[in-house]
Amino acid sequence: MAEIRDLSKHVGESVTVRGWVESTRGHGKVAFVVVRDGTGIVQGVLVKSAVDESSWAAHGTLTPESLVAVTGRVKAEARAPGGYEVELSSLELLALAEPYPIQPKEHGVDFLLDNRHLWLRSSQQRAGLRVRAEVEQSIHDFFYQRDFVRIDSPILTGSIGEHAGTLFETDYFGERAFLAQTGQLYIEAACPAFRRVYCFGPTFRAEKSKTRRHLTEFWMVEPEVAFNDSAANMRLQEDFVSYIVERALERCREELKVLERDTSKLEHVKPPFPRISYTDAVTELQAGGSEVKWGEDLGAPDELKLMETRDLPLFVHDYPKAAKAFYMKENPADPRTVLCDDLLAPEGYGELIGGSQREDDLDRLKSRIEAEGLPLDAYAWYLDLRRYGTFPHAGFGLGLERTVAWITGKHHIRELIPFPRLMNRLYP
Amino acid sequence: MAEIRDLSKHVGESVTVRGWVESTRGHGKVAFVVVRDGTGIVQGVLVKSAVDESSWAAHGTLTPESLVAVTGRVKAEARAPGGYEVELSSLELLALAEPYPIQPKEHGVDFLLDNRHLWLRSSQQRAGLRVRAEVEQSIHDFFYQRDFVRIDSPILTGSIGEHAGTLFETDYFGERAFLAQTGQLYIEAACPAFRRVYCFGPTFRAEKSKTRRHLTEFWMVEPEVAFNDSAANMRLQEDFVSYIVERALERCREELKVLERDTSKLEHVKPPFPRISYTDAVTELQAGGSEVKWGEDLGAPDELKLMETRDLPLFVHDYPKAAKAFYMKENPADPRTVLCDDLLAPEGYGELIGGSQREDDLDRLKSRIEAEGLPLDAYAWYLDLRRYGTFPHAGFGLGLERTVAWITGKHHIRELIPFPRLMNRLYP
Repeated sequence: MAEIRDLSKHVGESVTVRGWVESTRGHGKVAFVVVRDGTGIVQGVLVKSAVDESSWAAHGTLTPESLVAVTGRVKAEARAPGGYEVELSSLELLALAEPYPIQPKEHGVDFLLDNRHLWLRSSQQRAGLRVRAEVEQSIHDFFYQRDFVRIDSPILTGSIGEHAGTLFETDYFGERAFLAQTGQLYIEAACPAFRRVYCFGPTFRAEKSKTRRHLTEFWMVEPEVAFNDSAANMRLQEDFVSYIVERALERCREELKVLERDTSKLEHVKPPFPRISYTDAVTELQAGGSEVKWGEDLGAPDELKLMETRDLPLFVHDYPKAAKAFYMKENPADPRTVLCDDLLAPEGYGELIGGSQREDDLDRLKSRIEAEGLPLDAYAWYLDLRRYGTFPHAGFGLGLERTVAWITGKHHIRELIPFPRLMNRLYP
Repeated sequence: MAEIRDLSKHVGESVTVRGWVESTRGHGKVAFVVVRDGTGIVQGVLVKSAVDESSWAAHGTLTPESLVAVTGRVKAEARAPGGYEVELSSLELLALAEPYPIQPKEHGVDFLLDNRHLWLRSSQQRAGLRVRAEVEQSIHDFFYQRDFVRIDSPILTGSIGEHAGTLFETDYFGERAFLAQTGQLYIEAACPAFRRVYCFGPTFRAEKSKTRRHLTEFWMVEPEVAFNDSAANMRLQEDFVSYIVERALERCREELKVLERDTSKLEHVKPPFPRISYTDAVTELQAGGSEVKWGEDLGAPDELKLMETRDLPLFVHDYPKAAKAFYMKENPADPRTVLCDDLLAPEGYGELIGGSQREDDLDRLKSRIEAEGLPLDAYAWYLDLRRYGTFPHAGFGLGLERTVAWITGKHHIRELIPFPRLMNRLYP
């Protein structure tokens, strides 16, 4: 049994390939079948006079997505999809498919999402998810090569994370538990053990939001480094993002072609990325006519506006304290702000990363927790990290699906996760 | 700022190292401080006459886990932990730690788990979790090198997984959702797209079980391969497990030494592993005095008994249909059984893997779902995979924490996950 990816090694030989029927055509005495086996696509050619009757008859019954075994001689053929063709000596129908719901025509997105388990087989979806898988491996490789220790943070948590009110809740043997929105607080605890750590896993937001950039379940990678300040944190981010983009360009050439991605827009993504302070960004936005006021967080329209004139990812740093999470370190140079950054993607892809240096002063951290009306009790263990050898440290979170959407040039992030979970979608 | 792992490159030079105090000693005119910086451990030596007064005074105030910066000349010193020593010219106290809860004495496990955020810093825990991280990377590398496409399966699911009744439930915008116990069904859908796929992530069991081998949240890796039968599935499993073990032996030498693991028990873990049918296993157990009856699943005591005389992992294959999950393929050679396997670890570590060839016949699969009293509706999409080009395929699930427990020789799997979730533990 040969695999289609290996056909180049079998030119001139007879092989058998098993796979699913993508399409068929016939012209009286010659017929064609395009077969997909998960490793590639190949066209089989049947000449009526050269195959037995049962093969010819079988071809006539084929429906899309039927499973077949085709046997024949491999031939290089530049015009064929994949570059090779098989001159069939036989075709065997292994499993006839019922009429396949997904047609070569345009379908509505709800229909496609209802059939996500089948939609995965289409070429655009295959390409997008292969890029996702490559990005995931490159995430692990980047941190592994730099001696980060992977620390898996828990999903089931008793304490309250970043955004109370947008949490999924479950009964945990009589206690209330919540699905984690971030692993950050947990992996901070591992810094004194390993210095450089990261987590990578699913995170959850029970947000009633239906935009093309929201999922209720999405994957996030969060590194945390002892002794990094905010500046070092941004350097790590630009190195990381550049590495991911470069790997995708290098190893997903075919997929990006299928997705018709204009890769020239990614090729110059190399460090350093430009940096602008929140304060300067507000000035720039106001000069451009925005009504944003200093002190407010930047909304998606502001972020888009900032990126209109930029073609590299942009760091916006040192936001007002009131607009950001309690654990961010007060900026000694301007205590109205915190030492943090958002990394905005070009081309309208929005925020890829949120990062910050963490508040390492016990009393200031306590005040911030109290000021936000959060329960000190729930953070007792987190405060301990400031009691027993508190240390400067910084980290960030990168959203996987948004990053892959940007790299692939896809409009909707829901296509870049195998089984998207949206406000109105829990199936399949 | 130097890191301890790099000291060998700085012999004879003066460096500054920042880190946490592991211990201190003094003898009047000479004093010592052992510092951990997350990359290693090094001893600093203070000679009273060679350092300034403030450094000497600072040393006297140090408490365990205080953060310090030490500066001095690096010297090779075979007797020192890590092989190097720093002859200090100065010591600066950066953050004094409050009295540290974890003492060098024995603590009860509840106390240690309450302080898991600090316990992570101890040498045994660091070693165990480093092995875990290495195993995780080796999992990704194994599949990446073999052209598997990573497919992340959803955690939030509407349909019912393997063991109804042991599911965590949450409200999903008015619908009932459950935390997934397996990603298998989902990644089966991706086989016609990518042939070889795998998922790796947290899974959940709301089991009221308090044994040393149970967690309510644990990590599982699940590969699935189109066109693999049960025999090929077992070959993949033994290659995979052997690869993981070999990587850990190769790259976690120091950690396994800290853990006092007898690595001779792992060095011969190479394919092929022995295989025994369930039926023969029952005969063997009965001959040894067990009261197990053909048709029952094997319990933990039976599994232990089987492994008493074996020092390689053992495949037990082809269990009775009634003892196993609905999606396993009926064994054509003996329809009372299914084409499945459990891989049992030596040394009492129990089941590492459960695997099977999947039922690819639509009608048989439907009957099995109905026979188990499961709702056909919830599996409509799963049944679709048998409607549209059904194909032979097989896969398995390996429990990460059990595997790491076996490799590290640790008794309790709760130490091999950063923040264990047990029936009575949701904090920190």
